[in-house]
Amino acid sequence: MSSRHSFEQQPGPSSSALAVRLAARSGALNTHTSGLASAHAQGNLVILPKSHAGDFLRFCQANPKPCPLLGVSEAGDPALPVLGEDIDIRTDLPRYRVWREGELVDEPTDVRALWRDDLVSFVIGCSFTFEHALMAEGIALRHVAQGRNVAMYRTSIETVPADPFRGPMVVSMRPLRAADAIRAVQITSRFPAVHGAPVHIGDPALIGIRAIGVPDYGDAVEVMPDELPVFWACGVTPQAVLAAARLPFAITHAPGAMLVTDLLHHRLAAF
Amino acid sequence: MSSRHSFEQQPGPSSSALAVRLAARSGALNTHTSGLASAHAQGNLVILPKSHAGDFLRFCQANPKPCPLLGVSEAGDPALPVLGEDIDIRTDLPRYRVWREGELVDEPTDVRALWRDDLVSFVIGCSFTFEHALMAEGIALRHVAQGRNVAMYRTSIETVPADPFRGPMVVSMRPLRAADAIRAVQITSRFPAVHGAPVHIGDPALIGIRAIGVPDYGDAVEVMPDELPVFWACGVTPQAVLAAARLPFAITHAPGAMLVTDLLHHRLAAF
Repeated sequence: MSSRHSFEQQPGPSSSALAVRLAARSGALNTHTSGLASAHAQGNLVILPKSHAGDFLRFCQANPKPCPLLGVSEAGDPALPVLGEDIDIRTDLPRYRVWREGELVDEPTDVRALWRDDLVSFVIGCSFTFEHALMAEGIALRHVAQGRNVAMYRTSIETVPADPFRGPMVVSMRPLRAADAIRAVQITSRFPAVHGAPVHIGDPALIGIRAIGVPDYGDAVEVMPDELPVFWACGVTPQAVLAAARLPFAITHAPGAMLVTDLLHHRLAAF
Repeated sequence: MSSRHSFEQQPGPSSSALAVRLAARSGALNTHTSGLASAHAQGNLVILPKSHAGDFLRFCQANPKPCPLLGVSEAGDPALPVLGEDIDIRTDLPRYRVWREGELVDEPTDVRALWRDDLVSFVIGCSFTFEHALMAEGIALRHVAQGRNVAMYRTSIETVPADPFRGPMVVSMRPLRAADAIRAVQITSRFPAVHGAPVHIGDPALIGIRAIGVPDYGDAVEVMPDELPVFWACGVTPQAVLAAARLPFAITHAPGAMLVTDLLHHRLAAF
């Protein structure tokens, strides 16, 4: 039985974004951020040396649907004031992944020991925001109802390369009935900063997905006979591209352990 | 070979809307309005005695996707200043249909002889406007390329009844590849006054269409293997509902012989 004390340390859906970040900073939170500070946008993190940051920024600029940038730091500065109060990007995520030559070498809960003056942080929008908007309109999402990760797939859609970054777009899939799919296009079109409108609807084979029941990332989610699979560009794309580039050194968030920003979801709506 | 004189009497794509209406009024134009004054919105026409006008207005209000009202006249007044300069609704369409007890009894080129002080005119938005917007964005429409009417179908989607008006929604179908279907949802969502976003995408059987190759109205258009059928609410719905209500007296436009309004297509965009 958890003590009242440890319960109070754990942030929840109604916590402030800062409280979630402080819990990660203290070590009290070291797993995932799903559902925490639920009014606030979360972001994927990529940290690169300045020598590769310009190319990665070009890649994101050329591929805004999989790589919508919420914020980019100054080199060496662990703060990101545009995304939240008192952010220390080295400590404020529950868990990180450290990559060397494209290989995962560690999953620490902070990266202060690895910090360098030439590191640039990129925070990339995440589908939690548009899922929040969809559910707020009464559109049920099966993977959420079933407590699973969204199903994600590598596709035959090539990203626009920005040397050394290149590779296939990864998409997430949500099964929806047609009327909800149409409404979902409308709703997510309002959120270009978090992947925006879908990139595909219907036949998975047309975008190179051979087995809808066997996702490349996340969990399989059933598509019912009266539903269409609806595919959105996914923030796993830059992670896959990054791994494929086999950079000497990179840091990312660990899966599900995102940066919780001060941005309210609805402030990311374009109109 | 047509004389230069008769050629000049026929309006074309670059004619003014008023010129098209005057050509209809003079009798020089007595067929269809497709492609004429092509920057301008066209409308479906329904003329009813005041005794039924209130119920029909309720029906349109309850069913804005198939029955988006562009304008409603004063009883007995053949003008519609909100839709154009010097409109005489009794003469300015190329051809009309006259209905008695739900039966088509005549297709005259003007209805001055039938005019009454209690007649109310309803002008309902038409898909020409959103087709114009789709094509302006480079989305090819097969029925247009093939010079056919759009394929239309009765569905299992029931309209919201407003006694005595009730019945199934009629939809038009355009085959599109998924990326174009998504873009078409975005584009047509901007035009609620001309049917707005699609009502269905994908499996026709889910909305009660048994044979996509056998439309109930218009011409069959092939759906390619890499395309989705995309369905929009259609202005034929109020005509079908009207016929089913078997009113003592009604006038509508003849198919394809619409009111050409002074409204520019792009002015109907909601944002």
